[in-house]
Amino acid sequence: MGSLEIPANCLYGCQTKRSLINFPIGGIESKMPLQVVHAMALVKKCCAEYHAEIGLMDDKVATAIGEAADEVMAGKLDNHFPLVIYQTGSGTQTNMNVNEVLSNRAIQILGGEVGTKSPVHPNDHVNKGQSSNDSFPTAMHIAIAKMITETTLPGLETLHNSLKEKSEKYADIVKIGRTHCQDATPLTVGQEFSGYAMQVEYGIHRLQNSLPSIYRLALGGTAVGTGLNTSKGYDVAIAARLAKAANLPFVTAPNKFEALAAHDSLVEVSGVLNTVACSLNKIANDLRLLASGPRCGLGELSLPANEPGSSIMPGKVNPTQCEAMTMVCAQVMGNHVAVTIGGAQGQFELNVFKPVMVSNVLHSARLIGDSAKTFTTQCVDGLEVNIARVEELMNASLMLVTALNPHIGYDKASEIAKNAHKNGLTLKEGCVASGHLTAEQFDEWIVPSEMIGPK
Amino acid sequence: MGSLEIPANCLYGCQTKRSLINFPIGGIESKMPLQVVHAMALVKKCCAEYHAEIGLMDDKVATAIGEAADEVMAGKLDNHFPLVIYQTGSGTQTNMNVNEVLSNRAIQILGGEVGTKSPVHPNDHVNKGQSSNDSFPTAMHIAIAKMITETTLPGLETLHNSLKEKSEKYADIVKIGRTHCQDATPLTVGQEFSGYAMQVEYGIHRLQNSLPSIYRLALGGTAVGTGLNTSKGYDVAIAARLAKAANLPFVTAPNKFEALAAHDSLVEVSGVLNTVACSLNKIANDLRLLASGPRCGLGELSLPANEPGSSIMPGKVNPTQCEAMTMVCAQVMGNHVAVTIGGAQGQFELNVFKPVMVSNVLHSARLIGDSAKTFTTQCVDGLEVNIARVEELMNASLMLVTALNPHIGYDKASEIAKNAHKNGLTLKEGCVASGHLTAEQFDEWIVPSEMIGPK
Amino acid sequence: MGSLEIPANCLYGCQTKRSLINFPIGGIESKMPLQVVHAMALVKKCCAEYHAEIGLMDDKVATAIGEAADEVMAGKLDNHFPLVIYQTGSGTQTNMNVNEVLSNRAIQILGGEVGTKSPVHPNDHVNKGQSSNDSFPTAMHIAIAKMITETTLPGLETLHNSLKEKSEKYADIVKIGRTHCQDATPLTVGQEFSGYAMQVEYGIHRLQNSLPSIYRLALGGTAVGTGLNTSKGYDVAIAARLAKAANLPFVTAPNKFEALAAHDSLVEVSGVLNTVACSLNKIANDLRLLASGPRCGLGELSLPANEPGSSIMPGKVNPTQCEAMTMVCAQVMGNHVAVTIGGAQGQFELNVFKPVMVSNVLHSARLIGDSAKTFTTQCVDGLEVNIARVEELMNASLMLVTALNPHIGYDKASEIAKNAHKNGLTLKEGCVASGHLTAEQFDEWIVPSEMIGPK
Amino acid sequence: MGSLEIPANCLYGCQTKRSLINFPIGGIESKMPLQVVHAMALVKKCCAEYHAEIGLMDDKVATAIGEAADEVMAGKLDNHFPLVIYQTGSGTQTNMNVNEVLSNRAIQILGGEVGTKSPVHPNDHVNKGQSSNDSFPTAMHIAIAKMITETTLPGLETLHNSLKEKSEKYADIVKIGRTHCQDATPLTVGQEFSGYAMQVEYGIHRLQNSLPSIYRLALGGTAVGTGLNTSKGYDVAIAARLAKAANLPFVTAPNKFEALAAHDSLVEVSGVLNTVACSLNKIANDLRLLASGPRCGLGELSLPANEPGSSIMPGKVNPTQCEAMTMVCAQVMGNHVAVTIGGAQGQFELNVFKPVMVSNVLHSARLIGDSAKTFTTQCVDGLEVNIARVEELMNASLMLVTALNPHIGYDKASEIAKNAHKNGLTLKEGCVASGHLTAEQFDEWIVPSEMIGPK
Repeated sequence: MGSLEIPANCLYGCQTKRSLINFPIGGIESKMPLQVVHAMALVKKCCAEYHAEIGLMDDKVATAIGEAADEVMAGKLDNHFPLVIYQTGSGTQTNMNVNEVLSNRAIQILGGEVGTKSPVHPNDHVNKGQSSNDSFPTAMHIAIAKMITETTLPGLETLHNSLKEKSEKYADIVKIGRTHCQDATPLTVGQEFSGYAMQVEYGIHRLQNSLPSIYRLALGGTAVGTGLNTSKGYDVAIAARLAKAANLPFVTAPNKFEALAAHDSLVEVSGVLNTVACSLNKIANDLRLLASGPRCGLGELSLPANEPGSSIMPGKVNPTQCEAMTMVCAQVMGNHVAVTIGGAQGQFELNVFKPVMVSNVLHSARLIGDSAKTFTTQCVDGLEVNIARVEELMNASLMLVTALNPHIGYDKASEIAKNAHKNGLTLKEGCVASGHLTAEQFDEWIVPSEMIGPK
Repeated sequence: MGSLEIPANCLYGCQTKRSLINFPIGGIESKMPLQVVHAMALVKKCCAEYHAEIGLMDDKVATAIGEAADEVMAGKLDNHFPLVIYQTGSGTQTNMNVNEVLSNRAIQILGGEVGTKSPVHPNDHVNKGQSSNDSFPTAMHIAIAKMITETTLPGLETLHNSLKEKSEKYADIVKIGRTHCQDATPLTVGQEFSGYAMQVEYGIHRLQNSLPSIYRLALGGTAVGTGLNTSKGYDVAIAARLAKAANLPFVTAPNKFEALAAHDSLVEVSGVLNTVACSLNKIANDLRLLASGPRCGLGELSLPANEPGSSIMPGKVNPTQCEAMTMVCAQVMGNHVAVTIGGAQGQFELNVFKPVMVSNVLHSARLIGDSAKTFTTQCVDGLEVNIARVEELMNASLMLVTALNPHIGYDKASEIAKNAHKNGLTLKEGCVASGHLTAEQFDEWIVPSEMIGPK
Repeated sequence: MGSLEIPANCLYGCQTKRSLINFPIGGIESKMPLQVVHAMALVKKCCAEYHAEIGLMDDKVATAIGEAADEVMAGKLDNHFPLVIYQTGSGTQTNMNVNEVLSNRAIQILGGEVGTKSPVHPNDHVNKGQSSNDSFPTAMHIAIAKMITETTLPGLETLHNSLKEKSEKYADIVKIGRTHCQDATPLTVGQEFSGYAMQVEYGIHRLQNSLPSIYRLALGGTAVGTGLNTSKGYDVAIAARLAKAANLPFVTAPNKFEALAAHDSLVEVSGVLNTVACSLNKIANDLRLLASGPRCGLGELSLPANEPGSSIMPGKVNPTQCEAMTMVCAQVMGNHVAVTIGGAQGQFELNVFKPVMVSNVLHSARLIGDSAKTFTTQCVDGLEVNIARVEELMNASLMLVTALNPHIGYDKASEIAKNAHKNGLTLKEGCVASGHLTAEQFDEWIVPSEMIGPK
Repeated sequence: MGSLEIPANCLYGCQTKRSLINFPIGGIESKMPLQVVHAMALVKKCCAEYHAEIGLMDDKVATAIGEAADEVMAGKLDNHFPLVIYQTGSGTQTNMNVNEVLSNRAIQILGGEVGTKSPVHPNDHVNKGQSSNDSFPTAMHIAIAKMITETTLPGLETLHNSLKEKSEKYADIVKIGRTHCQDATPLTVGQEFSGYAMQVEYGIHRLQNSLPSIYRLALGGTAVGTGLNTSKGYDVAIAARLAKAANLPFVTAPNKFEALAAHDSLVEVSGVLNTVACSLNKIANDLRLLASGPRCGLGELSLPANEPGSSIMPGKVNPTQCEAMTMVCAQVMGNHVAVTIGGAQGQFELNVFKPVMVSNVLHSARLIGDSAKTFTTQCVDGLEVNIARVEELMNASLMLVTALNPHIGYDKASEIAKNAHKNGLTLKEGCVASGHLTAEQFDEWIVPSEMIGPK
């Protein structure tokens, strides 16, 4: 292939450099996610330790690789991983990038000279017992499992707690319900928020239920899934070692052909993130509409004012967290289609959409986790119910007329509502004007708080 | 392949029957759209006439095929086309279905016996000068061009006219603007509707601009695009004949390899329908929110009451046309993804996602045309502005305070707004209470109708 | 609303007729799926029985409603349900269609006069204890649960069995592996099919895991989720009754606000169907490529010839089942986006994309079930491995050279491969020509069947 | 809002800092694209110049703003724009970030003190004559127009030229055609590539046709589209100034309500990029399959070996550019869905999905441009036709038998093909064996190069 100049301070080597030349695609926002790089480093460390333990690798070499990997995982060498997503579809070039950097850094640790491949060889040592085809998808699963358990689920749990707390706090505030965007029978603010909380709770369960697919690791399949050049039991042992190191219940995939050639598990988890995005979009949309105003909207909620809305207009609080959240949802839904299209197009023994699939899943998982957290702390936690406004709308509504049926009959109730509507009266005014009941009877018979559940 | 029993009253033959056996997929909603079948009949008629004219087909045979094709196009033989979309990806089986039915019907017309293939043979006569690979995509383009020009564009034009009319009718009604769902500076109802009208007008232009791609026909490419077994000039002549028969400016595709192996033109037009769906979704959503209420929503618009909303609740008009429209939009966006995925996966000399692509494009085009029409006649035409409510909100707003800056300065204006917000005053009340201006000055200085354009 | 003429032989009434007038959208392929109608009938029957049992409905009326519902469920009255998907987003009009037809048919059964609403009233009796807002989503879940358990899962199980059988049948046939579409190390045909079988097996598990979300029923939430106008325990009792009648483990949704305002459960199950579509697309694509030929492709597989491929070209078997299957997959992926977009846009107490969501989920579930079945019986069951061709390619490959490393060293092995590639020799020819090993040693050292697993 | 500490070397101010605190979402890959920031700087510069020219801004201030903007556009201040996409949906915070940086940098230029807002105020000067609601979408359009004209179109033109050149170079090499992945009638390699070239050519036209929508600028609409606080003609003048500065034919949008509340133009152009992605996916897929091998695939093409494929396997060239390209296509299709969902959800006078829409469109446009270029230079330019292999397959095929029909009749021709298929003969062998024609007649009658076009 010819030789290439590598900048002096770089720990990567020719194969990384060559990829930089061949794939100048997409700029900074298209870089291979560092979470994948870090997970690759964990794979390398565990493989080196494993081989040292069974006597197939010099202990010093394995220890140096492990130390170098620890530095990568700690983010100390991030600048040495410049490759983009749009490269070989198996992630081979990122695998080689990791091999080169770990080899060179381990050489440094052992007092050798960078670039000499000695005493730590990128292929013979760092890549030992692996093929890109099984180590890269293993790193994909590790990175995704960590992102979901460390960012996505905690974010959703934070949001769930806050929604649930609001649901309890506002359990007794009766408000007008809305179906088809039209006034409907009442419910409590707490009940409304309980629906939101339930959506998020189900989302957490859905995400947890999708993790077992992610916990299955491809390592041990090597090039085509057969495990050629490994020994029996290697796959199980290395998965156990990764599980212990990552403190996550990884297991070896029972069928490595599936694990290399298909990434249905990523499509599955992306589908769950897509479902969660639907939940969050609904919640954020509702909050933004319920907080619309301050004078000309629904105005039932006040969202916290986190930044200047209008310099002259007091009370104008733009629902910026709702906007960030719904943009996140749109992105997650788009990412899901990218994952789906990549997932559908594996061929023979390999799916070669690995980088684009993992980057979209990680992107979605992080966006949901991050935005769920800021949406909670900067919006839900601090929102207030405008009780006076809620009551004003409640009283303005004519929907409560249904409570009169048992007392004065359907026909008279209907007549009252029609007149009130026609003449712009409140329901109480309409009732009294009708002569069918007194103001006292109205207060006795029409009790919204008795209309919020079964009898 | 063995012989098959065909029901006595059926005009189709063994190949159709075999497809019915091999592809029992999806039920009635998965049937090959009749528009494609009808367009195939037109292709067959034009080919027969062409071959008769140049002396390669007996006139009687060609005339009988033409008559049979006319019956198919008139919908008289629809029951004889029972196949589904999920068949051969080239549409071969629908091509054979059409060949069999036209052959048998032409045989009947000529007094022969159904099933004898004589004197009109399904392949030798009806399919003459064609391959499924070029005749089916030709029918796809014809069907789509007809659907768009006969249903989609007229539907959108109807809607555009109605929105434009509303825009003119309400040109002088000033209302509160809303950005971020929050109260903003005023505009007129007419201006708001002019935005909707403009969206639809652009949509019409976009659709018209995509038609030239659809007007390019594949016929003459035969099996792989080379035009094997045709004579020079055939492609041009047959396109001209189809153009005349359909009264649409069809031309032969300049490159038949592209025309068989790729259906980018369908992805393109589906992308335009997807854009139009975004426009319509926005408009329908706005109308539903502006008409929310009757008491507890924005209430600026009243939509026509087309069906009972609530038996007891007067004034509750569910925005059912908006709901149908937004459901159409969701479907069109989904269909677009199906078209995209099919369009991306052509292989070598043939794209074999033809039936699923054409059915989704036709579906979207029809849904948009039909729903634009009913949305117009059952909703937009009859909607009313609740002028009193519009003015009430307008006056309740504090946003007009910005008009005071040149008169009393930013600081005092801001102070007035803050007090009004805090104390629940109208802006006028707040102004007078502040002592910075009189009620007369308020009326003179704050004129919403002067805030709706540049100076 | 004025009166409308209903055709004499119609069992539906004015509200259905009015919907026909207001929503002429989309034609036959846009009709409300009959599965939803049938499930609505089950809801009506169970509600009537329940109310009769607790003494709130006359036994005769309930029995007649039940009998009418049985006829609907048996498909005897399908013609009386003409409405389309694009109607009220809550499905109200289909609910009323069902109410009208059941009422009229029950009236007939009891000897009354159609249209008189007596002795069986569409609202007071047939709709008793329900709102469209809870009964329609209940029917959605029932219809989906039935489709998945009766069509989708059995279809996938059929496919799984067939793939597994092939995997076992071809366990000993060693073939060349392919990664990046390039020759790679060997595996067995059985291993390759085991990957396919595993994909489908996981798909079945994923689908089963999504069913609990679908088993949760909204009934008892009535208009806004509060259960207004029901009595305590009604929701639990009616879910139990539906579970027994449908023989599926339905339960009442623990939170009815979520159950009416969000349909995340449909987005979830659609996401699983989307994942399954990715699996099936991969499998069908592989089979089509492995069966490519007969002379100029890979030619490792022969698919059954179900229909004429080419009249003159023997051995040309178009992979029509693969084409139908991949078109199904494209459609399912598109439908999923429609479901997602609908699912994201619920507002306040109601999601009004119910009909478009349920129709797409049912469509996808049916397409996958139907196509998995025909793909199995018309393609996978009958496919054959062309053993001679598999061996020919195996022997032509140079990839087996890796097995020589332990015997002659990497450098010599590499030199052999390079020469063989350059001179177009088989690997065996190249080995013998190199002088590094004999033909006998070649046969002893290069044993593909020992390269298909760990040692 | 309280005060915030800004690091000493930062040119941004409190509003930027506040956004950093409120929106810690998504990390580095979620940063607002710098192209938008640079385009915002152009808007600021042109507005300052305009206001100076008409005497509403001090010349020195305007000049300093212009100089600061030039530095931003040159990328010198990129580190001062740390905000992410997931912020206010109107892009307000990025607008303020630009205002703050330009103000502070202009102050520096004029010898003032950063943070004092004097003599250059971020709002009063830098933001003069603008609202986020019109300036941000203006920058969106400018950034997209530049990206498409400077990166996407040049990339596609490069690819088109290369494909066209190959099409001419290989105009005389006859190869076997493939439909349904099955052997079909012949065509030339040049014809096959002409189809690819045509797809890209149409893509270029489609993209050019979508630019007029992008050339329409929102500036002058201010907060809600009315142009409040501007003077008549401002919108036209500022668009002309921007057109001149950017050397692109920008015009003022004829309807500003549409321009703020809807971004259908972005959905449109994203739809075109999606169409182009379908084309590129097809081409890249074909090349990868045609280059499959080296021994066990189709092997008609050799792609350039840009990086090590296999250390021991000569001739194994992974189609990495095809893999990068198809991953780009998957991403573009996903991005398109995100754009669509954002585009569908504008409300009232503002669409608040601006940042997510523009970032996805820019991302797609850049990915297509970049990958088209590398795909050309690293793959298409250097690919070779393996002529011997192409001829071998051509001769192995039985499809040429159709050329015998006029000479020996259909029945005999068919019989020959069947025997050849059954006995594994070449067509020539089969012909001679049949006794129906001699080897000389075979060579005379079967001339593939006469089967590649109409007569």
